[in-house]
Amino acid sequence: MTTDVRLIGLDWGTSSLRAYLFDADGKVIASRQQPWGVRHLPEGGFDAALQAMTRDWPACAVVAAGMVGSRQGWREIPYVDVPADAASIASGMLRVDACHSHTLWIAPGLRQAAPADVMRGEETQIVGALAQQPNLRTNARFVLPGTHSKWATVIDSRVTAFHTVMTGEMYALLMKHSILGAGASSDPALSHNEDAFVRGLNAVKESGAEGAISRLFSTRARMLAGELTGAEVPDFLSGLLIGEEFRIARLRDGAHPASLCLIGDSSLCQRYATAAVQFGNAPPVIIDDAAAQGLWQLASAAGLLAQTTTHTYSGVAP
Amino acid sequence: MTTDVRLIGLDWGTSSLRAYLFDADGKVIASRQQPWGVRHLPEGGFDAALQAMTRDWPACAVVAAGMVGSRQGWREIPYVDVPADAASIASGMLRVDACHSHTLWIAPGLRQAAPADVMRGEETQIVGALAQQPNLRTNARFVLPGTHSKWATVIDSRVTAFHTVMTGEMYALLMKHSILGAGASSDPALSHNEDAFVRGLNAVKESGAEGAISRLFSTRARMLAGELTGAEVPDFLSGLLIGEEFRIARLRDGAHPASLCLIGDSSLCQRYATAAVQFGNAPPVIIDDAAAQGLWQLASAAGLLAQTTTHTYSGVAP
Repeated sequence: MTTDVRLIGLDWGTSSLRAYLFDADGKVIASRQQPWGVRHLPEGGFDAALQAMTRDWPACAVVAAGMVGSRQGWREIPYVDVPADAASIASGMLRVDACHSHTLWIAPGLRQAAPADVMRGEETQIVGALAQQPNLRTNARFVLPGTHSKWATVIDSRVTAFHTVMTGEMYALLMKHSILGAGASSDPALSHNEDAFVRGLNAVKESGAEGAISRLFSTRARMLAGELTGAEVPDFLSGLLIGEEFRIARLRDGAHPASLCLIGDSSLCQRYATAAVQFGNAPPVIIDDAAAQGLWQLASAAGLLAQTTTHTYSGVAP
Repeated sequence: MTTDVRLIGLDWGTSSLRAYLFDADGKVIASRQQPWGVRHLPEGGFDAALQAMTRDWPACAVVAAGMVGSRQGWREIPYVDVPADAASIASGMLRVDACHSHTLWIAPGLRQAAPADVMRGEETQIVGALAQQPNLRTNARFVLPGTHSKWATVIDSRVTAFHTVMTGEMYALLMKHSILGAGASSDPALSHNEDAFVRGLNAVKESGAEGAISRLFSTRARMLAGELTGAEVPDFLSGLLIGEEFRIARLRDGAHPASLCLIGDSSLCQRYATAAVQFGNAPPVIIDDAAAQGLWQLASAAGLLAQTTTHTYSGVAP
């Protein structure tokens, strides 16, 4: 089978690299993944990684987004300030010379002056999600849970504000190195203890303006009092920290939050969906990945699809 | 010189053990310190540690407080519930059989049901501080900064409520293992960057109900924006976390907080004193150590001083 190809997209983060080959309609016809994040490059560095990921794919425009554009990336691409939409993000893309036949463009991240915040890669996922969900363009909150969870406000297709909560990183640190994790055990019968998770959410909700830091040590005190078992500690702590994200969001959005869209790993998004409802939100839309769609949208907004000659590729479907 | 001795006091925590020999007036006439916390005992365990610490001291009543009474300690002494004063704490002391001529009593810690919290050792320091500062007995807040900072409300000489904030532990984890610490450097010219510390305090203060977790990542964003240097990161982060303690306290105490008393290491207390004033408190009283005084008070409240035969000790002054 021969297909017209138009674009290669790279979702290039800290710990992994995914490549997508798009046909002329923006459909992904092949994809590849390697653990070659910007901190885990193969021998030969960025260029070798790009060549290996695109081997036997036709020469065409390549758009990359994520930490590849950070100070530790291939080339530092200056942030674009919020408010920003697909067009303004695309206009901040810079062309990078790569040692092969592709033309590589790297997308910028977003910056907010006060409170100071930055993102790289999530803006592209949000652009992709907006393309998939037109009803979220007017007024919605996008949440990308993870090591550094990102909360973005979108109004009229523009990211107007965002903030980062280090939930995943704090959870890992507390479980691995703190006195709270020292008392925890894993319950092989349960990968997720919903009851303990909801108790953690409620502990933060009931704390009001005091918040999660004021309740962290209660994890330990509840264990000593026999109110929480070692097997319940991981989910209780997860509830405290994820609940804190919703507590903060409610302060910003008031009692009637906008539509919520979660983008990310489905089991993690499921926790956030539970928390969302617990904190008074309507059940959120969940999208497991929007990076490919976002890369296509940015290439389109940058006019790279019009400029590109069509190549043919006879490969297998993804 | 021959002195009447009356009591041996042990301040026995997680990482260190201090022993005090008191004369008949409650004055410390000798003291010793070893890194023999309950998790770092010498060969022979608790008994050997006690014998070594009290070698050549006369046989008399011994009162111990701290983690020595925890589940990981010599013997688990049940918590006493708040509200609690010196008399109720003393009535919770239990006698423990030790393999030598001393009579050993271990003090209980305090427990609060909701929000769930516990302390062990700090209650003895508070009892000691109240003996030293009669004017703080009516209504004061006692703060014992550290790995797990304790905030206690004292009304009419009783601890009525308290809460723990894991400030020291979180600071160490974030500096050692997180992305925030990864960008930090130490400035050999400054052991404490007051300006960066105050900026951290203000970032939390200005966050209102959102609190420190909502501003943690701003440390990173400010660095990337050139607004914060690597050398300023440690004190900015310290300001964020210590500021969070005062933000929480203000929610509990309102705009007109009671007198504040800091107990602990003087350089750490100095940071808390700066934070206290920044958050609208009057300059606090600072006491560097009140454990010896507290042990004496507990022994007195338990009637152990009356029961004890007076021994003489010809040693050197501390």
